[in-house]
Amino acid sequence: MKVAFQGERGAFSEAAAIAYFGDVEPAPSHTLADVFDAVESGRAERGMVPVENSQAGSINETYDLLVRRSLHIVGEHNQRVEHCVLALPGQHLEDVRAVYSHPQALAQCEALITRLGWESVPMYDTAGSAKLVATERRSGIAAIASRHAAEIYGLEVLAAGVETNPMNYTRFLALALAPAPRSDRAKTSVVFATANIPGALYRALGALATRQINLAKLESRPRRDRPWEYLFYVDFEAHQDSADGRAALQDLTGVTAFLRVLGSYPKAVV
Amino acid sequence: MKVAFQGERGAFSEAAAIAYFGDVEPAPSHTLADVFDAVESGRAERGMVPVENSQAGSINETYDLLVRRSLHIVGEHNQRVEHCVLALPGQHLEDVRAVYSHPQALAQCEALITRLGWESVPMYDTAGSAKLVATERRSGIAAIASRHAAEIYGLEVLAAGVETNPMNYTRFLALALAPAPRSDRAKTSVVFATANIPGALYRALGALATRQINLAKLESRPRRDRPWEYLFYVDFEAHQDSADGRAALQDLTGVTAFLRVLGSYPKAVV
Repeated sequence: MKVAFQGERGAFSEAAAIAYFGDVEPAPSHTLADVFDAVESGRAERGMVPVENSQAGSINETYDLLVRRSLHIVGEHNQRVEHCVLALPGQHLEDVRAVYSHPQALAQCEALITRLGWESVPMYDTAGSAKLVATERRSGIAAIASRHAAEIYGLEVLAAGVETNPMNYTRFLALALAPAPRSDRAKTSVVFATANIPGALYRALGALATRQINLAKLESRPRRDRPWEYLFYVDFEAHQDSADGRAALQDLTGVTAFLRVLGSYPKAVV
Repeated sequence: MKVAFQGERGAFSEAAAIAYFGDVEPAPSHTLADVFDAVESGRAERGMVPVENSQAGSINETYDLLVRRSLHIVGEHNQRVEHCVLALPGQHLEDVRAVYSHPQALAQCEALITRLGWESVPMYDTAGSAKLVATERRSGIAAIASRHAAEIYGLEVLAAGVETNPMNYTRFLALALAPAPRSDRAKTSVVFATANIPGALYRALGALATRQINLAKLESRPRRDRPWEYLFYVDFEAHQDSADGRAALQDLTGVTAFLRVLGSYPKAVV
């Protein structure tokens, strides 16, 4: 299965695609919008996009693309982010002087970088840093990237799990042109704008709460054409075609100015 | 009054501080955390921090600092973001080949940049780009920054309002060591974690909705030590010391695992 993801070969998104789909044909894409393009045009069968990191929060661009484009969410996967120090084979930790990575990865490994007195060099992405270390063939430099990137670029893992806080997970969404088949233990993602009535968001959440449907996530994003008005992205634990899910969506329609179901899909196991 | 803000002299945050407080003694600070430090240590009387942009969404770091630190929100201000093309005096639009600015500002002016075929050079911030153009004294380069930055660095405004979407506002919060005096037309900002009970967020919003208190903003942010648990930041239109406000906060206490009032302050006029 050909799966599009944002970043170079060896990106965390590629590792997530392999963990979720198994054996995939990787389709690295420059931007998140390119991932949506690839699936919409049929160049890839699936897309794998990060939507939220347990340390940094939501990936706003993904939320914006979910509503601007028309792909279906067909699955979710929580990927542990384990940062590794990668260098040319034969290098040791004590040889390293400068370390390359994405600014967020550098920040997440700040304790180690400070302790070892390394110079931090910000780069476009983690896998790109691994590629650079492999290409430049200089001693004294390392990249912070995934274990998977070490395999792809022929680098050695000098240290693994070097993030300061190990509670580091990224939630990925699997995207496709067609909706997922009906599943048990389903989650449904919707996006809506509240109607201009008092207590509108409260009433919207009531459509779920009164049916004991668990609200897994609520995220607000600005409406770009209307300052200080918001779109709400809600994940709830019911299938859109279940009796409860159907009734909740019907109630939601009555208290929202705009409502779209982004997909029902099996809830991640972890 | 000495007001700390993030960025160089001429930053949009400085313009917001002047618009809100009038004549201020500017205290430029390297990071948002430095702004909080300056006010906590008494080096500045107030801080002015961006919390939300109508195009890009919430400034996550500000939300995280509001809960980690203990300053009070004492005011809010909505600042129109008007991007200008700045260059050395005597330069014209048709002389420009390369334009320097923060990546977000470059993205917001993409239509103009593409039309004129300029090279985009990403920089640390908008005011820093203006400073660079003023210092380098080369022809053919321009910065995208505020009109205010032009005055500070002795540059000329070649074009104003060059953002693609003019609905571009940033909401700023004024911060102080002590709470604001009681005001009418007040807004209150709180942060809470929901108790581990079904429909917890729905019940929390019910504390406001049942009293017809308007919910102005709801934002969720991850709890860094607990993956997939969230803190909710809520702005509502009532003073914490009004009868309704007090009753709502008391109800909120019953359905939250953690609750903190970040401040009550006069609602922005615009």
